[in-house]
Amino acid sequence: MNQVYRDDSVALHTDRYQLNMGEVYWADNVHNRRAVFEVFFRKMPFGNGYAIFAGLERVVRYLQQFRFSDTDLAYLEEEGYNEDYLDFLRTLRFTGTIRSMREGELAFAGEPLMRIEAPLIQCQLIETAILNIVNYQTLIATKASRIKHMIGSDTALEFGTRRAQEMDAAVWGARAAVIGGFDGTANVRAGKMFGIPIAGTHAHAMVQAYRDEYEAFRKYAGTHKNCVFLVDTYDTLRSGVPNAIRVAREFGDRINFVGIRLDSGDLAYLSKKAREMLDEAGFPNAKIIASNDLDEHTILNLKAQGAKIDVWGIGTRLITAWDQPALGAVYKMVAIEDENGRMADTIKISSNPEKITTPGLKKVYRIINRRSGKAEGDYIALEHEKPQDEERLKMFHPVHTHIMKFVTNFEARELHHTIFEDGKLVYELPPLDEIRRFAADNLELLWDEYKRTLNPAEYPVDLSQACWDNKMAIIRKVREDIEQKRG
Amino acid sequence: MNQVYRDDSVALHTDRYQLNMGEVYWADNVHNRRAVFEVFFRKMPFGNGYAIFAGLERVVRYLQQFRFSDTDLAYLEEEGYNEDYLDFLRTLRFTGTIRSMREGELAFAGEPLMRIEAPLIQCQLIETAILNIVNYQTLIATKASRIKHMIGSDTALEFGTRRAQEMDAAVWGARAAVIGGFDGTANVRAGKMFGIPIAGTHAHAMVQAYRDEYEAFRKYAGTHKNCVFLVDTYDTLRSGVPNAIRVAREFGDRINFVGIRLDSGDLAYLSKKAREMLDEAGFPNAKIIASNDLDEHTILNLKAQGAKIDVWGIGTRLITAWDQPALGAVYKMVAIEDENGRMADTIKISSNPEKITTPGLKKVYRIINRRSGKAEGDYIALEHEKPQDEERLKMFHPVHTHIMKFVTNFEARELHHTIFEDGKLVYELPPLDEIRRFAADNLELLWDEYKRTLNPAEYPVDLSQACWDNKMAIIRKVREDIEQKRG
Repeated sequence: MNQVYRDDSVALHTDRYQLNMGEVYWADNVHNRRAVFEVFFRKMPFGNGYAIFAGLERVVRYLQQFRFSDTDLAYLEEEGYNEDYLDFLRTLRFTGTIRSMREGELAFAGEPLMRIEAPLIQCQLIETAILNIVNYQTLIATKASRIKHMIGSDTALEFGTRRAQEMDAAVWGARAAVIGGFDGTANVRAGKMFGIPIAGTHAHAMVQAYRDEYEAFRKYAGTHKNCVFLVDTYDTLRSGVPNAIRVAREFGDRINFVGIRLDSGDLAYLSKKAREMLDEAGFPNAKIIASNDLDEHTILNLKAQGAKIDVWGIGTRLITAWDQPALGAVYKMVAIEDENGRMADTIKISSNPEKITTPGLKKVYRIINRRSGKAEGDYIALEHEKPQDEERLKMFHPVHTHIMKFVTNFEARELHHTIFEDGKLVYELPPLDEIRRFAADNLELLWDEYKRTLNPAEYPVDLSQACWDNKMAIIRKVREDIEQKRG
Repeated sequence: MNQVYRDDSVALHTDRYQLNMGEVYWADNVHNRRAVFEVFFRKMPFGNGYAIFAGLERVVRYLQQFRFSDTDLAYLEEEGYNEDYLDFLRTLRFTGTIRSMREGELAFAGEPLMRIEAPLIQCQLIETAILNIVNYQTLIATKASRIKHMIGSDTALEFGTRRAQEMDAAVWGARAAVIGGFDGTANVRAGKMFGIPIAGTHAHAMVQAYRDEYEAFRKYAGTHKNCVFLVDTYDTLRSGVPNAIRVAREFGDRINFVGIRLDSGDLAYLSKKAREMLDEAGFPNAKIIASNDLDEHTILNLKAQGAKIDVWGIGTRLITAWDQPALGAVYKMVAIEDENGRMADTIKISSNPEKITTPGLKKVYRIINRRSGKAEGDYIALEHEKPQDEERLKMFHPVHTHIMKFVTNFEARELHHTIFEDGKLVYELPPLDEIRRFAADNLELLWDEYKRTLNPAEYPVDLSQACWDNKMAIIRKVREDIEQKRG
């Protein structure tokens, strides 16, 4: 193994091949050719009907910090990169233009979440970090939205730090959960960094520390006005709940007996029994908070069984996106400046049809029916097209092209906003509660059939005729070229 | 939402309830009572026969940085914590003693990975971060070991950054992969931070940038001595491999034609065909590097089909631990100083039998048969016991106690080492290649039946008779207490 450096910077948070390609471009003096890349995913996560885009704030911070430090360059020199190339990297800053969905925007498979236009070498160097960030945060915001959908108007709390995949995932995951509709987190650092309400009372360890549950609850009540007692350290119904009630009675108005927390056992049975005990004891307003490997599926089942749970603490299965722990968004070139200074569309062909990219500079519109106020689908058009000027918009499925409809009386809402313009941040990052509200408002645009957590209807994401024709022509051309070269 | 702070520190990387409990203890003046907590997991990840402990280096760095900053305290004051309590936190440093497995040690369900002895309040405040770190890194080291087991003597590379759960997971996951036996990573930052060999050549984007595969390969060969060509941008067998061969011939000795990379399609078929083409072209030493959603299961199948792959790039399924993205290690109190200054054992009872903790200060020993050189099992004993002095050690299953054996002529190797002693780091963190070697050597102690990736035999983790008796006595006492109080 090699030398270890203790200082850290984000510029090296990339795959080695990006630096290799950068060196090729630099040596060939094509590194400053204008290139355009798009970020998109190919498959809806969790089989959900929609995704919620997140990660932009972190991407902005990353790009603002993007520069190679002295030790970064020293390390790269050891790895054999050309010294003049490293000199070039020394002063490199991000100077490109980024158009992106806003955080909290609904996103669907096959449509560009972000569009990066920059000198080719910059586009490559920042790819890995952008995907790393957007993939995770979009995944968690989407998972949180699914879970919140089941929780409904009850309170949803993010409790997953100890099971998160390292420290960044814990705090940025907590933030993404709030974008997806969660109300708070247990992670104090996330509270400080993002202004998220933080929640939590005490753990089993406190009961163990006093070696007597009643004594532990009394001590807690002695120092905290708002009291939630964790009742399952020894025996929920025979010890925990009775001790909570006893302490609540003793302290009376001196505390606000918020409720009890269940963290193990059969939550349906225990919550119903505990509810009865609390009601009989004269605490009908005491809430029942539950946690223990919950996700949208267990919540649906618990609710179906009439579980009496008011606040849901969601840990592992949210923060790791348990049933699909990666989104799989990719970053593909759609155009590049050619040797004559003109932009040329590019494609990536694949034997898997869904892996073929859609060439060209594009915009994404949400087509909203003015009568219903609901979205008819998303519409991907080439840069110069103006779908908002059309009287009657033809929308068709980009694979099964016979599936088509005409839409009239619509609004074509553009989903991309300019974030960086020639390297300058021109977008004001909104506060988190605004993003959360934006996401909730966006969900109102969707018919219910797209919001089922199981087998939702497929929301249309269509290409304009011009965009589709362009793609087909380029595929044909590539095929012909290959045949021709084989001769 | 609340105010947002831009500066960051690790002390708040904890759950809110830890700070609440801290306040209770501080107000009751029991915060400095000596407490002992253990970290352990209850179930083998991925159904594997062993786990590989990782995360210690990061835990050490975290504890060395553990202090509340001015803005941390300002934030906590806003959240309503007592000012005198916050003054106490201001000067708080970690002063405890930690005994831990070394990174690369084999770990099994139910045995303590780490033991933290410290003032009660410190034990609580550091719990969340320790679990966050150890859970993820141990999970990935274990997953990597499973995958490396299938890869065998071929080269194993970690390629997952873009799919990792945020940035920390990418770099610390790359390090954990190396502990589990991987040979390198694509993440350049992980290379710089940990000295891991970094690997990578070029992406599809470079072929697109030159809009001609042959031209792109030539440009790469013009600047890089070692060449791997990615051959699946347009058509692997009809375009990619022929172009790679053409460029390799043209450049001859001016480059080292390391090989080609396949990133899509049927890797068994394509690798065999590509191998034939390379051999026929006179490049029998050119390697075939493959990637595309690989894990231990696909590798087993590809090898069974005779795929000709020399280097395996593993992304998503390793870095996210796809089939089980959280380990589930917990942190439980096993003893606490009582009001008379004596240490008293503590327990957490649960209606799930496997969730009941094992009380008391304990040590873990690996019992190694001197004749075979193989491990007979792990043996958890109380602090004062000396299994190494026994002539004939009785080992029995802690649940099915009739499963038992006697072992003679054994070495009882203690698995915990002292890391911090009264807050002082007394352990020298080993370099990563030493940890990797240590993990590989440890695997030599295991019989093959524990190393199968599917349905391995269960490695014995036994309690000493004294430890078992102590646990049963405490369970009985807690039950009696509950009955008596309900009286």
